[in-house]
Amino acid sequence: MSGNSIGHTFKLTTYGESHGEAIGGVIDGVPSNFKIDLEAVQRELDRRKPGQSSIVTQRKESDTVRFLSGIFEGKTTGSPIGFIIENENQKSKDYSHLKDVYRPSHADFTYDKKYGHRDYRGGGRSSARETASRVVAGAIAKQFLAQKGIQINAFVSQVGKIKLQGDLTQIKLPETENIVRCPDSEVANQMIDYIKEIRKEGDTIGGVIFAKITGLEAGVGEPVFDKLHADLGKAMLSINAVKGFEYGSGFSGVEMKGSQHNDEFLTDGTTKSNFSGGIQGGISNGNPIYFNVAFKPVATIMQAQKSINTAMESVTVDGKGRHDPCVVPRAVPIVEAMAAITVLNHYLRNKMTQF
Amino acid sequence: MSGNSIGHTFKLTTYGESHGEAIGGVIDGVPSNFKIDLEAVQRELDRRKPGQSSIVTQRKESDTVRFLSGIFEGKTTGSPIGFIIENENQKSKDYSHLKDVYRPSHADFTYDKKYGHRDYRGGGRSSARETASRVVAGAIAKQFLAQKGIQINAFVSQVGKIKLQGDLTQIKLPETENIVRCPDSEVANQMIDYIKEIRKEGDTIGGVIFAKITGLEAGVGEPVFDKLHADLGKAMLSINAVKGFEYGSGFSGVEMKGSQHNDEFLTDGTTKSNFSGGIQGGISNGNPIYFNVAFKPVATIMQAQKSINTAMESVTVDGKGRHDPCVVPRAVPIVEAMAAITVLNHYLRNKMTQF
Amino acid sequence: MSGNSIGHTFKLTTYGESHGEAIGGVIDGVPSNFKIDLEAVQRELDRRKPGQSSIVTQRKESDTVRFLSGIFEGKTTGSPIGFIIENENQKSKDYSHLKDVYRPSHADFTYDKKYGHRDYRGGGRSSARETASRVVAGAIAKQFLAQKGIQINAFVSQVGKIKLQGDLTQIKLPETENIVRCPDSEVANQMIDYIKEIRKEGDTIGGVIFAKITGLEAGVGEPVFDKLHADLGKAMLSINAVKGFEYGSGFSGVEMKGSQHNDEFLTDGTTKSNFSGGIQGGISNGNPIYFNVAFKPVATIMQAQKSINTAMESVTVDGKGRHDPCVVPRAVPIVEAMAAITVLNHYLRNKMTQF
Amino acid sequence: MSGNSIGHTFKLTTYGESHGEAIGGVIDGVPSNFKIDLEAVQRELDRRKPGQSSIVTQRKESDTVRFLSGIFEGKTTGSPIGFIIENENQKSKDYSHLKDVYRPSHADFTYDKKYGHRDYRGGGRSSARETASRVVAGAIAKQFLAQKGIQINAFVSQVGKIKLQGDLTQIKLPETENIVRCPDSEVANQMIDYIKEIRKEGDTIGGVIFAKITGLEAGVGEPVFDKLHADLGKAMLSINAVKGFEYGSGFSGVEMKGSQHNDEFLTDGTTKSNFSGGIQGGISNGNPIYFNVAFKPVATIMQAQKSINTAMESVTVDGKGRHDPCVVPRAVPIVEAMAAITVLNHYLRNKMTQF
Repeated sequence: MSGNSIGHTFKLTTYGESHGEAIGGVIDGVPSNFKIDLEAVQRELDRRKPGQSSIVTQRKESDTVRFLSGIFEGKTTGSPIGFIIENENQKSKDYSHLKDVYRPSHADFTYDKKYGHRDYRGGGRSSARETASRVVAGAIAKQFLAQKGIQINAFVSQVGKIKLQGDLTQIKLPETENIVRCPDSEVANQMIDYIKEIRKEGDTIGGVIFAKITGLEAGVGEPVFDKLHADLGKAMLSINAVKGFEYGSGFSGVEMKGSQHNDEFLTDGTTKSNFSGGIQGGISNGNPIYFNVAFKPVATIMQAQKSINTAMESVTVDGKGRHDPCVVPRAVPIVEAMAAITVLNHYLRNKMTQF
Repeated sequence: MSGNSIGHTFKLTTYGESHGEAIGGVIDGVPSNFKIDLEAVQRELDRRKPGQSSIVTQRKESDTVRFLSGIFEGKTTGSPIGFIIENENQKSKDYSHLKDVYRPSHADFTYDKKYGHRDYRGGGRSSARETASRVVAGAIAKQFLAQKGIQINAFVSQVGKIKLQGDLTQIKLPETENIVRCPDSEVANQMIDYIKEIRKEGDTIGGVIFAKITGLEAGVGEPVFDKLHADLGKAMLSINAVKGFEYGSGFSGVEMKGSQHNDEFLTDGTTKSNFSGGIQGGISNGNPIYFNVAFKPVATIMQAQKSINTAMESVTVDGKGRHDPCVVPRAVPIVEAMAAITVLNHYLRNKMTQF
Repeated sequence: MSGNSIGHTFKLTTYGESHGEAIGGVIDGVPSNFKIDLEAVQRELDRRKPGQSSIVTQRKESDTVRFLSGIFEGKTTGSPIGFIIENENQKSKDYSHLKDVYRPSHADFTYDKKYGHRDYRGGGRSSARETASRVVAGAIAKQFLAQKGIQINAFVSQVGKIKLQGDLTQIKLPETENIVRCPDSEVANQMIDYIKEIRKEGDTIGGVIFAKITGLEAGVGEPVFDKLHADLGKAMLSINAVKGFEYGSGFSGVEMKGSQHNDEFLTDGTTKSNFSGGIQGGISNGNPIYFNVAFKPVATIMQAQKSINTAMESVTVDGKGRHDPCVVPRAVPIVEAMAAITVLNHYLRNKMTQF
Repeated sequence: MSGNSIGHTFKLTTYGESHGEAIGGVIDGVPSNFKIDLEAVQRELDRRKPGQSSIVTQRKESDTVRFLSGIFEGKTTGSPIGFIIENENQKSKDYSHLKDVYRPSHADFTYDKKYGHRDYRGGGRSSARETASRVVAGAIAKQFLAQKGIQINAFVSQVGKIKLQGDLTQIKLPETENIVRCPDSEVANQMIDYIKEIRKEGDTIGGVIFAKITGLEAGVGEPVFDKLHADLGKAMLSINAVKGFEYGSGFSGVEMKGSQHNDEFLTDGTTKSNFSGGIQGGISNGNPIYFNVAFKPVATIMQAQKSINTAMESVTVDGKGRHDPCVVPRAVPIVEAMAAITVLNHYLRNKMTQF
């Protein structure tokens, strides 16, 4: 009821503030008797962690996850997996200047209105630091799905106006990611240069992440309200800074006619085109599922901005600290994590449909 | 768990197939002791019903709702409101030709894969007929919200390439809707003409609905996973034929810099610009909330199409029956209903935040 | 959130007041592709209906269920089953004398306090009439379980001080139930005579129902909070007039030593004794599950009683109408229904434990 | 779905095994802006901890809780409270002799059947060690309720055949608890002597805990399935070793007539008698709520027992380790915790009934 859980079957509940003692979570509904690779989980966290490259925040935090329960002799027991990531970077004094100030386009104002007071240190609960816990759960979900032949991959397709062209569903991912996580090295370099330029300006820029799910059998998803793409959409929109979600033909489908948009079935059950995005009536049809996620420019900029304080007086907020000029490179593992959690939930729910 | 409910507090569960006995639902969590205008509910249903104008399906169905419980002496009792809409148009034989056929871009194939068999009459459970039940619940939610000064309005902003220009948040709604539900009469006429043309071709076309929520106080919404816009997005994506959702700056925010996108706070707590779309960190900030919903062209076209049957053999599907050339005019009350249900749920959830 | 649903997977939501338009419900999460015997459902309703014998209320109501959805060509489709039982006995004027009165040990007072007003006709939502909807869902659950070899049987073991002696788990049920639903015809006759006597006094009496579940494999149930017996207990305590629940050794286990109470495992996995009641750590162990449900005497008596009215003044409430002198004979199918719903839910949940 | 959470509004999810890294939990839905006394939480834990007196297990574990989030400057923030209790007593080798053995009346066998393998160290997830996390959440719930004038108190009323006589609802609690937590010092001493005797025999004994909730206003609770007493019953039955629950007149109400059992309303809204146990139709009526919880003798005894191993062969299980001869003294704070969690959940849910 209070918004800190996701999933019905493989259910993640997270806790923790940006500058509190620790962040972490509990995953309930983990299928039992499954071999788990804990180092692979840490590797996913490393894809998200600050300080990993020259185009992300230079804050240093090791983000090491410690597992507390639910795993015995290398296998899941079916009991909840509790985990914790200690906050190493708790310099609370850094944030006292924000105690009475509402930063533009942050959640300072809305948290105060809702809760009556707030942990103002680094955004508290509203900080994207919380997403590290999602990556932990997502990495576990990914392992389950991989075992069933289901793969989830995301990459950066746009930074500002710099855009990967062509049919994104056909792009082959290189073996190693570059620092901006765009699979075309030429476009990637343009993006990297542009992000560096933006950072010099003390500004930030938005971007788009494209994601694809392959290997999911037909028949997974629920009808009516919990359509697979509706749950994917909610999961993506719950990520900090996301402003839009589209799947299959998305917003471009608006201008198409039915005769163009309809996906002709072939005798192997696949479809000739895939404007449906692998989902019909909320349920997977066996074709690849793909979608776009739009991220706004992050709100923290290194420029002076006009704003108000808690007494509703005009103030100037100065840009301070170490922040991301563009969030999408670090958001790729988060998008994958949220997709994996969503798909695994539907995969498990579907186990009860027939028996 | 099976996808037929929405909401945690004001919770709607629907039932019914396109050509079964009846459709309907139960609303649990209706606040008690509230005067309810049942005729206003029927008027909302009339905005959605088939046969209402020359540009929608000419199927005739009166869609009269009968309330079964939860209302006593004109007021809600706090007990669940059960309601039923009898299906008058049950010509099952019309649909026997679809028994063994998978129509392109419909849910026939996926329902068969998931459930092992399906009610093939008119799409069965996957038919948009189900959304009539949503409109009933949404109309009740709207009345509650209106009483608190919260208004929800949607209109058609695009049909195919015909697009309403300018700042949609500033558009004043006329007192009476035209048949395409676009507030600019000139653009509306272009849309109407275009839809008639599309129908003549036996084809269909997509569109966009824009919606705005005003009067919602700051502080409503939940953090992290159940952000207000994430729940709005899920609600919209659960509507038949929806392919995309964006709020505030949406996909266009991708190309903006933080210094442009950040909404400066004024000393009355409102913001100068509203790229945030009235929500920060998942919680309302008191400014108008607005969003776009993208609809694909409906899959049923009046043209012969290649497809497969249940034996996975090639077949030709002929276009038959009476269907909508463009779904957005009838979808406006559905978008409003889903928005009202979502906002009322968050409004009620917020009652437990402080005490 | 508002208490009108039960179950996570096979989820029943009910609606309807004693003297409203109709009662009914929606069952979501019905496994698909399952042949359903609708006449058997009606037979279960007949076991519960008023007027069935000389020892129950002489109110006449046919309680005919009409199914609205979710069943196609005799099989479940996996879509929600909506159903309705029209109220035939709506003599609202009969109840106007209760409009301003709080009957002792009824829910009149508490509903008024909670909801601000109430449907006073025949108890409104708080009436046990609601349990007819439970019997419908329970009868369907029973059919699913029976197909898997799982049987649920309940009978009356006590009325007032008249008590069935011996080991109740060993009692064989006769082929046809007698009117008091106690399997020992001698004790049954004593009970029947006693109930008739009680009715002559214008009074009511309590009773106990014993229930047994056989054929459930080991491993069904959840740990910690949703233990199988905890969910059975909640389901039973949710039935009108129930004051207590115990399973296995129950309250008598309090006086036992561990060395007596522990159930020795045999090499076929069964246990020598069964004080555990077929459940260990909340999970079935393959032995029969059994429990007792205590019912208080129904509150409606045919005697004058002192009470208060809504103005908090002393009044006398006269006994009127046609009511049950003892509720347990009609409650047997309700206990079975609630047990079936609970067990089926856990059976389905367990499908996600390993994969 | 997997049983490790309780509550809809004030929701506790626990994790951790008896001999894993740590146990703990997350509480979501904590009302914000509330001053919290963390030392009082630790004091409740101390009432539950092992080694506290001569009649409980002599295992030593400090059970110190560390709070990780959700509290800022001494007040709740409305964000989830994560907490952890490190396991100090991880002597895994102690338990290797149980690796392949199913102890009688423990959950070893059922966990293996359900999950395919199990953490056999000290009962793993099925150990009552998990209840420490419940006490943490319960202690916080208690503080909220106390602030609203709602008190929850439990005590031991029976150990084996030694039983506190008279009207338990009238008993005044002494300022300090004795080690058996029975408020009558004479009966307490008999209980203590008896428990010591039982321990000498290497055996265990059952008991009853009585609990009372006072100060709860009328109108709290939900109708139909989530009746306040049904949720209390489920909460109690979820505690390890509980076999029965009754409230108000309970099982003794079975033998009463309606004319005796009905609680006459007085003009102040209270009732003359209180056989209803403070709840009518599932909703509080303002009178004290009271109930009994029956505990079986704990399964771990210091005697040799016949059992089977995982190969389904006969084996002898020897009694080893340090365990409780009678669980009820340590279970008193657990019963109070579960009652507090349940009542607070209903208290918060009721906030949405009228607005």
